[in-house]
Amino acid sequence: MNSWGTIYRISIWGESHGPAIGIVVDGCPPGLNLKPDDFKEDLGRRRGGPVGTTSRHELDLPIIQSGLFRGKTTGAPLSIGFENSDTRSSDYDRLKRTPRPGHADWTAHDKFFGFNDYRGGGHLSGRLTLGLVAAGVIAKKIVEPIKIHSRVLRVGGEDDFQKALKEAVAGGDSIGGIVECRAGNVPSGLGEPFFDSVESLLAHAVYSIPGVKGVEFGDGFAAAGMRGSDYNDEIVDVSGRTKTNHAGGVLGGITNGNELVFRIAVRPAASIARPQQTIDLQTGKPVSLTIDGRHDACIALRVPVILEAVTALVLADLWLRSRSLRGGRPSARRPAVRVPEQQEE
Amino acid sequence: MNSWGTIYRISIWGESHGPAIGIVVDGCPPGLNLKPDDFKEDLGRRRGGPVGTTSRHELDLPIIQSGLFRGKTTGAPLSIGFENSDTRSSDYDRLKRTPRPGHADWTAHDKFFGFNDYRGGGHLSGRLTLGLVAAGVIAKKIVEPIKIHSRVLRVGGEDDFQKALKEAVAGGDSIGGIVECRAGNVPSGLGEPFFDSVESLLAHAVYSIPGVKGVEFGDGFAAAGMRGSDYNDEIVDVSGRTKTNHAGGVLGGITNGNELVFRIAVRPAASIARPQQTIDLQTGKPVSLTIDGRHDACIALRVPVILEAVTALVLADLWLRSRSLRGGRPSARRPAVRVPEQQEE
Amino acid sequence: MNSWGTIYRISIWGESHGPAIGIVVDGCPPGLNLKPDDFKEDLGRRRGGPVGTTSRHELDLPIIQSGLFRGKTTGAPLSIGFENSDTRSSDYDRLKRTPRPGHADWTAHDKFFGFNDYRGGGHLSGRLTLGLVAAGVIAKKIVEPIKIHSRVLRVGGEDDFQKALKEAVAGGDSIGGIVECRAGNVPSGLGEPFFDSVESLLAHAVYSIPGVKGVEFGDGFAAAGMRGSDYNDEIVDVSGRTKTNHAGGVLGGITNGNELVFRIAVRPAASIARPQQTIDLQTGKPVSLTIDGRHDACIALRVPVILEAVTALVLADLWLRSRSLRGGRPSARRPAVRVPEQQEE
Amino acid sequence: MNSWGTIYRISIWGESHGPAIGIVVDGCPPGLNLKPDDFKEDLGRRRGGPVGTTSRHELDLPIIQSGLFRGKTTGAPLSIGFENSDTRSSDYDRLKRTPRPGHADWTAHDKFFGFNDYRGGGHLSGRLTLGLVAAGVIAKKIVEPIKIHSRVLRVGGEDDFQKALKEAVAGGDSIGGIVECRAGNVPSGLGEPFFDSVESLLAHAVYSIPGVKGVEFGDGFAAAGMRGSDYNDEIVDVSGRTKTNHAGGVLGGITNGNELVFRIAVRPAASIARPQQTIDLQTGKPVSLTIDGRHDACIALRVPVILEAVTALVLADLWLRSRSLRGGRPSARRPAVRVPEQQEE
Repeated sequence: MNSWGTIYRISIWGESHGPAIGIVVDGCPPGLNLKPDDFKEDLGRRRGGPVGTTSRHELDLPIIQSGLFRGKTTGAPLSIGFENSDTRSSDYDRLKRTPRPGHADWTAHDKFFGFNDYRGGGHLSGRLTLGLVAAGVIAKKIVEPIKIHSRVLRVGGEDDFQKALKEAVAGGDSIGGIVECRAGNVPSGLGEPFFDSVESLLAHAVYSIPGVKGVEFGDGFAAAGMRGSDYNDEIVDVSGRTKTNHAGGVLGGITNGNELVFRIAVRPAASIARPQQTIDLQTGKPVSLTIDGRHDACIALRVPVILEAVTALVLADLWLRSRSLRGGRPSARRPAVRVPEQQEE
Repeated sequence: MNSWGTIYRISIWGESHGPAIGIVVDGCPPGLNLKPDDFKEDLGRRRGGPVGTTSRHELDLPIIQSGLFRGKTTGAPLSIGFENSDTRSSDYDRLKRTPRPGHADWTAHDKFFGFNDYRGGGHLSGRLTLGLVAAGVIAKKIVEPIKIHSRVLRVGGEDDFQKALKEAVAGGDSIGGIVECRAGNVPSGLGEPFFDSVESLLAHAVYSIPGVKGVEFGDGFAAAGMRGSDYNDEIVDVSGRTKTNHAGGVLGGITNGNELVFRIAVRPAASIARPQQTIDLQTGKPVSLTIDGRHDACIALRVPVILEAVTALVLADLWLRSRSLRGGRPSARRPAVRVPEQQEE
Repeated sequence: MNSWGTIYRISIWGESHGPAIGIVVDGCPPGLNLKPDDFKEDLGRRRGGPVGTTSRHELDLPIIQSGLFRGKTTGAPLSIGFENSDTRSSDYDRLKRTPRPGHADWTAHDKFFGFNDYRGGGHLSGRLTLGLVAAGVIAKKIVEPIKIHSRVLRVGGEDDFQKALKEAVAGGDSIGGIVECRAGNVPSGLGEPFFDSVESLLAHAVYSIPGVKGVEFGDGFAAAGMRGSDYNDEIVDVSGRTKTNHAGGVLGGITNGNELVFRIAVRPAASIARPQQTIDLQTGKPVSLTIDGRHDACIALRVPVILEAVTALVLADLWLRSRSLRGGRPSARRPAVRVPEQQEE
Repeated sequence: MNSWGTIYRISIWGESHGPAIGIVVDGCPPGLNLKPDDFKEDLGRRRGGPVGTTSRHELDLPIIQSGLFRGKTTGAPLSIGFENSDTRSSDYDRLKRTPRPGHADWTAHDKFFGFNDYRGGGHLSGRLTLGLVAAGVIAKKIVEPIKIHSRVLRVGGEDDFQKALKEAVAGGDSIGGIVECRAGNVPSGLGEPFFDSVESLLAHAVYSIPGVKGVEFGDGFAAAGMRGSDYNDEIVDVSGRTKTNHAGGVLGGITNGNELVFRIAVRPAASIARPQQTIDLQTGKPVSLTIDGRHDACIALRVPVILEAVTALVLADLWLRSRSLRGGRPSARRPAVRVPEQQEE
């Protein structure tokens, strides 16, 4: 369903062309400093603007309606909403009968018996990642000593982004990309055998970002072509430090204190300005569809900040879970995590 | 933790060198025919035997202690256990101080403050996948019209398995591989937006298989290099059928009735007969470690039946969840699923 | 945490004196007719107004921001909010240092290290039951053939409500009460052994209503004084119908199709206009506290509609879960439940 | 389903007349001393033997198959089983067609479409509480400074147990009772608003004990007849201590450090030696049923140790959850909890 997490728990809601979208963030420890400005940078990164991203203009101002009191989190759930204002639903009205290839139009229609809000993808829209980014801003504060950084590695199979993009846009086409995420200063001991390994939880969360079709950790698919003598990371000290980091910071599903490294594959944006074959759901006849409107040519460009956010969500949840296990006991490679001070009375 | 699932729910337990390992399977519908022989084929496939797999010999007979009555499931939890008999713990005793590179020895030691059962990887052992396979046998019955098939695509980057394996074993080394899974006859409408998409749940479960470092759906990482006009699957009829299947049967996290296709990367087995550098946890000094004992050279060879099992677990859970939503309502592309007949009184 | 449910899942947020309170309702089947007016009756019953209930005036208009499209539920989460307008926080400001006896002031302060929003009980306020009532309105639609009715049985140990109330209010005091809930037309087969019996889930949900200190099913505490020959409900037909209903409609945690009957004990409202002893958290010295402001003298009076709501939440969740098990198979005593029609295209 | 808990998580399995019953305990911190003898006392108390309890003889030896290594818990799941040996299934065979009044025979048959193991109540049998008691023994160790004690307050409405029992047994009848549980040395701050209050979680767990029909905290149902000025517990110091304890140690769903006090109502045992009216499920005709076999006349007598166990389960889970929130921060009234020492290497 539309919620995720064991201790740090989020519930997402909203539709692309409804009045608003939002997220409820539960399990946030009390006493964190939080102000609307803290969301600015990441929300700004997500909104984008470069060539290849949509021209839909929204202010994306977070409306925090609970869980915050005098500039600090209270321990109660934070409800964060965002208004939808720049919705031109007529763009989508004629798409109702003709599901767009590569989109969730047909599957959403099928799953929800035709009752789904189909405008702009409805609930299955990239716009809902706004909520993920907002929840990620808070999660980053919770795991503060951990530094998460994500960037686009390749667009359309090339390292020259501008060229690849320009060509795609010129052709009325879209293009995929590869995005990497690295987290440094990660404490060892995060991740739960058997089913809640770091890889399991990260992949679970990451596949919630629309357009992701592959997730690999450390050497990932390349590891499948390697020998053990090349792949194994030799251990160099009692704190688990290793000579290399082919495993990407995770062994047996548990962090070893190395940098956490993983990459994702993002498919090309589904909406393109070229004619595509689809079906008219009413007549049952094939039709040719050309999609106008405002669309990203390369959704991968917008993914890094979202990827950081879901990574932060997972690490915050695992970190809070690990406190339950450890109860204050430090580990070999565990950076100090800020504990909020008792409020002055 | 060590449980997974919303309706079809499993809890795994056991250690490689403890008296037994097992699994509790909850949420299995009543009235399924089930007998010990039904486990034979898949457990046999997992046990393996070909070049490149371990020579540990276990009978792997499932001991079903609950949930089964007169040859049929009852609706109560099934407890399925397997005895460990062929355990030579002395093999591992000297490894206690010297964590093996590429293994979870150090992370398990760190996470559990040194209290973990370190023999043969303890709880973090491939032996526990026996339980997954057993739960998968039952899950396959639940989703019977769905046909799941998995196979090794490549070993060590090559398509000539025997050659690749022979060379690795000769060098005292191990080797990785790529395994594919395909599920046909999948009903449309499985998968939950936002956080429980088919990809999220499958990746979550698949990353619980020891050694998996990558998961990709449909064209996966190749999609990152494609254009939308090549990638998008054009729709050819009202039942959502498409001309191509680049998406691997999932759109917006929901199955569209196409074949479900995904691939995983399996790293080379961690245990190799070549000297590797590690640390003595007591002295803090570097030591050279050569691992004897019985080990797989290529764990990818053993993965297909396990991959089928976790795929069946996920599909069974999603299928049972979808019944809750649909309440008997058929979808455009939903194969009839056998409903067990009311028992004769 | 602040969420509940397996399939029909709610997440609650807000504080008594924050800008708004609300609830996110997930797992609602698509196609239910729902309009703002549908909430009027139950929200009105909750708002109350009779002698003994608070004089805080709020419009309590539900703002539905998602999950609803053209008058029908879509299958996506419904976000329902309510503005707080009539908040006089100054009433509470002086209470910050002096936790009110019988209230959660001290425990909330302690649990959240003093970061909690203490105004009017903050997150731990009866005002949040607005969200429960709203979610209950939808749940009642899901289980439509089930008829849930709740009423106050006794106030202050007496059956003459007005007299008991008048005396309490005159004395600047408050008073407790007993509330009963009955649900008719309940299908048999709801409830999950072992841990999710009907009684377990109902008690869990009911104890979330502020002020509840006792829950009993059927003959409840009186059953402890009975003999089996008096208590056992003799069975009169193959559909499980019984001569009597001492068990209150639940056997072995599963509904038997009889009327579901349970009662709850509600303690007297904590806020009273009489001086009470408490402590000044800053000086550590005892102080005498007299609570002004607007308060219920008898919160039991306001409970029936909330009790109906949480009962509906539980039954909706169990009903949707049972569809997963049954997949359309009818039971001996299962009333037909309306399946929303496929939307006209 | 058959599992419970957020961090300290249990999964129960087995049937009264199957080969064994058991429980899987997950989330147990590593390093706790645990040996088979530790279970003796509580399992012995459960087995009972006094007048009014069944004469079924089982050794009830716990078979621990995982999660324990060299006398200490490892942090991996503990699988604990118990063999069923003294099963006389023929006792029950003729009951298949004639559901016993007061038992779950009919509801289990209905819910599971007749596939349930009906022998001795099958999965819905008091015998499964063995697993609860075993999990409780471990939970008591986790919350060690907390002292939990439970005792029978009344049998059949009387305080003279022996007289009440003797009369019931002489009449071939059974009798109910009231059991109280008190937990001292409970840290403040346990319990989660909104849906996981201490009362919600305890009631949820307690209603899993077969035969429980009422649960009340502190003054419970008596509070419904009280005035606020009598009921409110006045606060006497900054650590939240109060003059009285009408609330039973819980305010706003959160422990205040007072003694936790609650009582439960246990209905009379369902099996009685007197003729009762039921139905023949095959012929549909009414029949008179007299139940032979070995049965408790008063199951309340056996409940105290089970009640302690489920109380310990809940407190262990809440305690581990609170560590996640607090991360080592002490509260006003939090007794020191033993942290297992790092194992000597």
